[in-house]
Amino acid sequence: MRRLRLGMVGGGEGAFIGGVHRMAARLDGHWDLVAGSFQSDPDKSRDFGVSLGLAADRAYPDYQSMAQGEARRDDRIDAVAIVTPNATHHSIARAFLDAGIPVICDKPMTTSRADADDLARLVKKTGLPFVLTHNYSGYPMARQARAMIEAGELGAIRVIQAEYAQDWLATDQAGNKQADWRGDPSRAGPAGALGDIATHAFQLLEFVSGLQAEAISADLTTFIPGRKVDDNVSVLLRCAGGAKGMLWASQVATGAVNGLRLRIYGDKGGLEWAQETPETLLFTPLGQRQQVIRRGGAGVADAAAHATRIPGGHPEGYLEGFAQIYSDAAELIRAHHEDRAPHGFASLAPGVADGVRGLAFIEAAIASSASHGAWTPIN
Amino acid sequence: MRRLRLGMVGGGEGAFIGGVHRMAARLDGHWDLVAGSFQSDPDKSRDFGVSLGLAADRAYPDYQSMAQGEARRDDRIDAVAIVTPNATHHSIARAFLDAGIPVICDKPMTTSRADADDLARLVKKTGLPFVLTHNYSGYPMARQARAMIEAGELGAIRVIQAEYAQDWLATDQAGNKQADWRGDPSRAGPAGALGDIATHAFQLLEFVSGLQAEAISADLTTFIPGRKVDDNVSVLLRCAGGAKGMLWASQVATGAVNGLRLRIYGDKGGLEWAQETPETLLFTPLGQRQQVIRRGGAGVADAAAHATRIPGGHPEGYLEGFAQIYSDAAELIRAHHEDRAPHGFASLAPGVADGVRGLAFIEAAIASSASHGAWTPIN
Amino acid sequence: MRRLRLGMVGGGEGAFIGGVHRMAARLDGHWDLVAGSFQSDPDKSRDFGVSLGLAADRAYPDYQSMAQGEARRDDRIDAVAIVTPNATHHSIARAFLDAGIPVICDKPMTTSRADADDLARLVKKTGLPFVLTHNYSGYPMARQARAMIEAGELGAIRVIQAEYAQDWLATDQAGNKQADWRGDPSRAGPAGALGDIATHAFQLLEFVSGLQAEAISADLTTFIPGRKVDDNVSVLLRCAGGAKGMLWASQVATGAVNGLRLRIYGDKGGLEWAQETPETLLFTPLGQRQQVIRRGGAGVADAAAHATRIPGGHPEGYLEGFAQIYSDAAELIRAHHEDRAPHGFASLAPGVADGVRGLAFIEAAIASSASHGAWTPIN
Amino acid sequence: MRRLRLGMVGGGEGAFIGGVHRMAARLDGHWDLVAGSFQSDPDKSRDFGVSLGLAADRAYPDYQSMAQGEARRDDRIDAVAIVTPNATHHSIARAFLDAGIPVICDKPMTTSRADADDLARLVKKTGLPFVLTHNYSGYPMARQARAMIEAGELGAIRVIQAEYAQDWLATDQAGNKQADWRGDPSRAGPAGALGDIATHAFQLLEFVSGLQAEAISADLTTFIPGRKVDDNVSVLLRCAGGAKGMLWASQVATGAVNGLRLRIYGDKGGLEWAQETPETLLFTPLGQRQQVIRRGGAGVADAAAHATRIPGGHPEGYLEGFAQIYSDAAELIRAHHEDRAPHGFASLAPGVADGVRGLAFIEAAIASSASHGAWTPIN
Repeated sequence: MRRLRLGMVGGGEGAFIGGVHRMAARLDGHWDLVAGSFQSDPDKSRDFGVSLGLAADRAYPDYQSMAQGEARRDDRIDAVAIVTPNATHHSIARAFLDAGIPVICDKPMTTSRADADDLARLVKKTGLPFVLTHNYSGYPMARQARAMIEAGELGAIRVIQAEYAQDWLATDQAGNKQADWRGDPSRAGPAGALGDIATHAFQLLEFVSGLQAEAISADLTTFIPGRKVDDNVSVLLRCAGGAKGMLWASQVATGAVNGLRLRIYGDKGGLEWAQETPETLLFTPLGQRQQVIRRGGAGVADAAAHATRIPGGHPEGYLEGFAQIYSDAAELIRAHHEDRAPHGFASLAPGVADGVRGLAFIEAAIASSASHGAWTPIN
Repeated sequence: MRRLRLGMVGGGEGAFIGGVHRMAARLDGHWDLVAGSFQSDPDKSRDFGVSLGLAADRAYPDYQSMAQGEARRDDRIDAVAIVTPNATHHSIARAFLDAGIPVICDKPMTTSRADADDLARLVKKTGLPFVLTHNYSGYPMARQARAMIEAGELGAIRVIQAEYAQDWLATDQAGNKQADWRGDPSRAGPAGALGDIATHAFQLLEFVSGLQAEAISADLTTFIPGRKVDDNVSVLLRCAGGAKGMLWASQVATGAVNGLRLRIYGDKGGLEWAQETPETLLFTPLGQRQQVIRRGGAGVADAAAHATRIPGGHPEGYLEGFAQIYSDAAELIRAHHEDRAPHGFASLAPGVADGVRGLAFIEAAIASSASHGAWTPIN
Repeated sequence: MRRLRLGMVGGGEGAFIGGVHRMAARLDGHWDLVAGSFQSDPDKSRDFGVSLGLAADRAYPDYQSMAQGEARRDDRIDAVAIVTPNATHHSIARAFLDAGIPVICDKPMTTSRADADDLARLVKKTGLPFVLTHNYSGYPMARQARAMIEAGELGAIRVIQAEYAQDWLATDQAGNKQADWRGDPSRAGPAGALGDIATHAFQLLEFVSGLQAEAISADLTTFIPGRKVDDNVSVLLRCAGGAKGMLWASQVATGAVNGLRLRIYGDKGGLEWAQETPETLLFTPLGQRQQVIRRGGAGVADAAAHATRIPGGHPEGYLEGFAQIYSDAAELIRAHHEDRAPHGFASLAPGVADGVRGLAFIEAAIASSASHGAWTPIN
Repeated sequence: MRRLRLGMVGGGEGAFIGGVHRMAARLDGHWDLVAGSFQSDPDKSRDFGVSLGLAADRAYPDYQSMAQGEARRDDRIDAVAIVTPNATHHSIARAFLDAGIPVICDKPMTTSRADADDLARLVKKTGLPFVLTHNYSGYPMARQARAMIEAGELGAIRVIQAEYAQDWLATDQAGNKQADWRGDPSRAGPAGALGDIATHAFQLLEFVSGLQAEAISADLTTFIPGRKVDDNVSVLLRCAGGAKGMLWASQVATGAVNGLRLRIYGDKGGLEWAQETPETLLFTPLGQRQQVIRRGGAGVADAAAHATRIPGGHPEGYLEGFAQIYSDAAELIRAHHEDRAPHGFASLAPGVADGVRGLAFIEAAIASSASHGAWTPIN
């Protein structure tokens, strides 16, 4: 089974998420990075690519020439990873899909619902694999939670509490490269914490619960003077089937680091999971003792076991969860090459539909907040 | 310094909170229980009082004869503890205040804002001590948090997350004495989880932060068919000074036990406290390492040290926090007897003003939820 | 049922454990403090007693006159609490037992095995109740652990890890009243951390496991120059039935507060309990998910339910565990008065036999350490 | 900077640690696996190598032909990873060192002190890099702890508590491939849990504290009938400078998973770290609040920052710690190629000296246990 060939757009010197994608792609041994267009300066892009071991002619000056150049090769890339600021995702993804190349795209998928719908149509039309790196859904214990709910172990879901708290934007971070583009609507889109982290919490909430949020009431705040996007997000949710939820996302929660946390309560049981301690899932069957479910431990669902590399007690973390998305993508692409259904649990990988939901959520939150928290449908 | 004499209305056989009040009153040695009217059946009330060591003639058949009987005695009670279902608090408190007897009342103070205002007027008019047992504000580490915020250690408050999750009403509890009266609007008032636990979270939020919530948007839910009051409460808050908050209270959160938790984030630091692990307070000064502040440990504020009995590492808990309210009440009453200002930190005890805020919160939440979450002022 | 009358020897101004005994005796409402000899200065002892509400003639100048005076009264005390430095326990206990008065004694029971055996003989001869306040065995979850092991839920015990770490003696504490007597062999006996805290860990280990330690190898250390007793204790244990154990006690473990912790592993399951988080017990049945057993929660043994006051999630702590010993003592004494077997689980209270084991442990540890860790029997 | 070429001996189908080494080598992008001898059956070895992407002629039938074959190539491997059962480490390492090829060897380094000394002499003679994968010392927070102690933040070390508890051998695991060789003295050497995990705890203890254990008293036990090696290890330690320690390792601690934990107490502060929650280090400066030091967070030492890939709150785990050893090895080998001193903190990687200490520890523990726990020097 040959390794797959990966290209990358974005992720040059000083980028955070590009390096993460590369480590995630390497970890499970399914991918070799062979092509890329890493930064806007063509010389720097080429030098950076060569420093990563690429052949000089596959370190392209821009994504357009890369899409065209790769499309012409017999050994063309099996997928492109798009790790640029949000506002460029749509046109880059379009270019590669048009060139017949599958896409692995960072989130949020686009900066408007219209663009998201456009990509969804194109993915449908081309039939190409499209994976969106809502990486937290790659954690084994998140998949365990989903499997338990799907199997009915929580009964009917009543209450969902999702949160994602950080503090790295608790002060004006002008000059910080990561902060600058995220705070610039022309590059990040109209959503701040809403797009950067609330969408992760929202995707995880729907992924794990199996429920769709039907309507939300939102209150967006910008605490730092001069900041052009929200940095604190409060949302009430109403889900299909009558479940109620709350979602909080903040990048000014002083002391919080990367506090993504999900709690789901049904009439037969409740679950708690926190990204910073990802190896355990707390489960309380109604009226019984609480159970600590460990990755690699007793009573783990197939979907979680499949997403695990090493025995329990040997902590897996963020990169392993992210790598799972890359391994899922590899299987989706191999299945596409071989014109067969994907094996195992690869279809759990988030895709274009999650991207559309994310933009629907972003636009509904902005609209609700602008109209004094009016309940606004997500559809 | 003589022990104070306590009377009690309510708290007979099978009651939960009456027994808690008695243990709390005993713990610090400031109170002797000497009079009471414990249940509606006069014989049972007398027998129960005698079983507690009361003289038979001070185990009264009803609260009216108790108020009058005690008022006539030279050794009359120094305070009455009211531990009946909510709907009777107002008239009982009125009777004792009218008889010149200080009141220690369980929460919520009344079942309507009008009744709460009425008690506030009467307390003001009589000048009598009135303590409301929002007991969680008696925990040393809750007072530590308040002292730190008051001292500016968090800077300007931006975000407050309060929650109180339980699961004991996750099923229909018909026949459970504690559940029955709480679910009966004629005894508990119109609020379910809202009155029973959300008011605790709300009081603690305002007590610790020193901020007043100015307006809320609420979504109340009743998940159990046939239940007449809410069992899940979702609230967005806007506080004086621009802070934003969320408050969640639930009695159907399967697996939660008594999960009162408060997190407050300012521009200089953040705090986290949870009632189930009350001995520690987590504090992160902006950009520095997180600190674990322990009751009885290093760097504890006077207000917290004052509320502590034994060295750190020897866990104090719920009864000690509750006892603190009784010790505060003792000091308030002694100061009243001696016509002096109360010593130390006794004025931290919650009182009639907290009761008024609680009813204002309840009525605003019900009104907001009834009007699709419209932002509703609390004043 | 009348309240019992308690006398106290020791526990005057500035004492720590005397105040704890008084709170513990008050909490559950079984005891009234009516007599005492609190400090060596007769005037101060009387004044202190009166300040606690005692009649002046029952605030005695010394324990001898107290034992004799009380023995002559019709309303004599039902028990005496001995809370003096260790070296005086034996003669004080003797005096009261000789006077026909039951004893509640702080630990360690005496400062020599010979004195401990002497008390054991006297208790046997008089038939009087004798309770030793190894208070940690009063915690509900410690009793839960014992009940589970007794019921075979752990199978055959293989490994026991006990530890008790503090840091309050990490520096020379000369001038600290609590430290001074504990560091003075003439008042505390020959054992430092060994007597003060290692005995607690040892008693808990035997209480919970149901096993007796047959032999130990010990290494005692004194880290603070000039200190006359050990401040760090390392012990290997061999238990009846082949179980192996380790016990560590330290008062120089910088950062530790009151870290008593017990872990027991059998061939069918394992248990973990820590005094600083006493409300939960972690249980892992072999090959299954770990379970969190909560005081007041699902699947709690009768012996633990009996030792609980308030619902789970409302933390009980150190004083409640200590109060349980006083409630057990009350029942033992009432049963003695009524010449019947004690009800419920009162016999779980530690007694003179635990005291003898404690001194056997102390003497074996000192002997082993003095002979280069030679394995030394405890019998 | 070219990627380094890695060879591997051992780690075929069904092996655990071989796969870990391969993931660890891939993660940071310094290594390509290009040669190997994976299992004893030559055909299977070749097929397995090819499945990993190796050229068929570099999937060797045995380690001898591999050492010779690689030595002859211009593009020979830069290092060999030895991941076979312990008993073969010595001869394999010898073969590659003799061929001039650097070694990355799994632990314990050999099965006798004599063999360990022999390798140490050979490493010295050849001047070749030799890295021993005591991977836990690659965790950033373990290096943080070491840096803090080195900088004097704990003052003089007094007490060290190390433990490593597992339960996967709590039952007879005959037929489990991982258990079989570990329980067979002809393949694993004379030590069971002692060699497999106690050596990790011992290495970490010395690595972090900077102290050498001078003498130990040990008690080794085999709980499972028929098992030929120890499965529970209790050790008392005396360290240079007067520090005392305890070390417990068990593979029958029912409910424990991979519980490596280290606590170190000095006269100025104390530290706690646990492998299962590797992202945080607890530090208590004497008399001050406890601090939570997070990987990637405030106040992190250069040595820890150097060993980190992604921001705090995005959990790194076991594979990242292991990868650090491989990245250190890459730097050591590049420095060797370039005849310069290694950059940064690569010299923190464990090496042949740790291997010698490990065997000295194993042999002292076996000798001490055989002579009733006699204190036995480690030198």
